[in-house]
Amino acid sequence: MQVLVDGTDGGTVAADDRGLAYGDGLFETMRAHGGTIPWWPAHWSRLLRGAARLRIPVPAEADVVRQVATVFQGGDGIVKLLLTRGSGGRGYAPPPEPAPSCIVSHHPAPIATQGGLTLRWCDVRLAEQPALAGIKHCNRLEQVLARLEWTAPGCPMSGADEGLMRSTSGDVVCATAANVFALIDGQWRTPPVDRCGVAGVCREWALARLDACIETLSPQQVESADAVFLCNAVRGILPVARLGDRTWSPHPRVAAARRALALDHPAFAAPPETP
Amino acid sequence: MQVLVDGTDGGTVAADDRGLAYGDGLFETMRAHGGTIPWWPAHWSRLLRGAARLRIPVPAEADVVRQVATVFQGGDGIVKLLLTRGSGGRGYAPPPEPAPSCIVSHHPAPIATQGGLTLRWCDVRLAEQPALAGIKHCNRLEQVLARLEWTAPGCPMSGADEGLMRSTSGDVVCATAANVFALIDGQWRTPPVDRCGVAGVCREWALARLDACIETLSPQQVESADAVFLCNAVRGILPVARLGDRTWSPHPRVAAARRALALDHPAFAAPPETP
Repeated sequence: MQVLVDGTDGGTVAADDRGLAYGDGLFETMRAHGGTIPWWPAHWSRLLRGAARLRIPVPAEADVVRQVATVFQGGDGIVKLLLTRGSGGRGYAPPPEPAPSCIVSHHPAPIATQGGLTLRWCDVRLAEQPALAGIKHCNRLEQVLARLEWTAPGCPMSGADEGLMRSTSGDVVCATAANVFALIDGQWRTPPVDRCGVAGVCREWALARLDACIETLSPQQVESADAVFLCNAVRGILPVARLGDRTWSPHPRVAAARRALALDHPAFAAPPETP
Repeated sequence: MQVLVDGTDGGTVAADDRGLAYGDGLFETMRAHGGTIPWWPAHWSRLLRGAARLRIPVPAEADVVRQVATVFQGGDGIVKLLLTRGSGGRGYAPPPEPAPSCIVSHHPAPIATQGGLTLRWCDVRLAEQPALAGIKHCNRLEQVLARLEWTAPGCPMSGADEGLMRSTSGDVVCATAANVFALIDGQWRTPPVDRCGVAGVCREWALARLDACIETLSPQQVESADAVFLCNAVRGILPVARLGDRTWSPHPRVAAARRALALDHPAFAAPPETP
C-alpha cells in the first residue's frame, strides 16, 4: 500500500490526531480506472457536505487531486482519501483553528464476484442519528461489529458475502459497505439515509440513472422483492442471489442496470453477468 | 505531551490504523496523583469490558501499567490510554488476528473550577445504540458536534462550561464529558447508560458511595432538582450553579459528596467549595 500523509510519503500520523482519538474525520473510497477517477466530482462533493456538517476545513481540491494522482500513478485500483480534523488537545472541543490531516492510499482493485451475493441479516442495528446520517464519517463501529458477526474467529461460518442492516426502528437501511436496491412493482427502491446510513456515490448514480425512488423498506418488502442488488463506488452493482432462505435467479432488470453502469463508468464495463 | 506508542517514545501511529479509519478503539482518561493512579482498577476493568464488547485483544495489564508509569513518572496530571485494533486492511472486517496499538500520553492536570458550572442543553441528541452504550469507545462525533455548538469560531459565546445531552428519545443522559447526578426527594439519581452514554468511573464511585440510584430523568426533572452535579474521573465532582434559566445555590449535599470523594481519592482532596 502506498500512502501519502499530507502529501508526504511516510505512512504515519501524529498520535494525537483527532481521527484516532474520536473518529473525527471523513473518508472516500474511490475506484480508479486507466489513470482517472471517473466519479471524483461525486466523491469530492460528498466530502464537502460531510466537512460542512462536521465543520472540518477542507484543503484545496487541486492539492488533494495532486496527492490522489501521485498514489495511483495513472493506474487502476482503489484510492482511499481520509480527512481528519488533525491534531487536537485532549478533549472533545476541537482546536479553534484545526489543521486537518489528509491521508491518501492506493489499494488493489477488488476481485470481481462471480454470480450473485449471499446476504444475511445483521443483528446489530444502526442507531438513528440525523446529525451524522448520509455523510461518510469515520465513526464506524456499528459496521465493524456487524462485520464481526460472521467473520470473527470462532464464529460459525455462515458463508455470507455481506450483511443487511436495519435501523433501531426495524427498517432496512443498507449493507455494511454498500447501499441496497429492491425491485418492487417494477420500480427500483432504496431506503432513505436521513436518519442513518450513507448516501453512496453509486446509490446517487442509480437513483438518477435507473429512475429509482427513495422509500422506507421493511425486511419483508426486501425479502419479497422481485430482484435485489447492492452497490457501491468500488464494486459497482452486485446482484443478490440469496438472503436467508430467500433466493433470486438472475433478473433482466439487474443485468440492464449493470449494462447502464458499464456505459457510464469504465471500471465496471463488461461485468460477468452469470457465473 | 509525552507519548508512548506501543511502549516506544515516538508519537506517531501507522496511517492504516483502524482507530484512525473507523474510531475502532477504546480509551481511558485517568487522574494521576503523587505517583499513582488511584482509580486504575476501575479504568482497567472498564477497558476490559469495552474490549470484550468490541472483541479487541488486550495487552497484558503489567505491560500497560509499565507504560503508564513511564509517561507520568511518579507525578500528577492526566494519563490517557488509547487502545485501537491496530493496523487493518481497507474494509470494516477486522483482521483475523489484530495487533492492537496502545498509545499512552501524559497531560497537565485541569485547572480547578471555582464555584459552580454553567450548563446549557445541547441540540445534538445521543443516538440509542445498546451495542456501544456504556463503554468508552472512540466513536465520539456526537460529543464533538455537541461541543462545537458553543465553542466553534463564529458561534455566539454562551458562556457555558459544559452541555447536557439528551437521547433521541428526549431523556437526559450526561454532559459531553461527564455524567450527571440530580438530587430529587433527598436521593441522588443518575440516568441509565444502557442505550447511550458512558458508564463513568466517577459515576460508579458515586453510585456506590452516595447510595445513588439509576433512573430515567427528563429535562424537567433535572431542572427542578434540588441540586445537580457533574462528575468524571479527571475533575471529580463539579457542582452545577446554572442550567439555562435555572440557578442553584451551593447545596450541603453536594459539599458532602465532594468531601466523601476527597476521602477516597487524594487528587480530589480539599476541593474549594465556594468561589
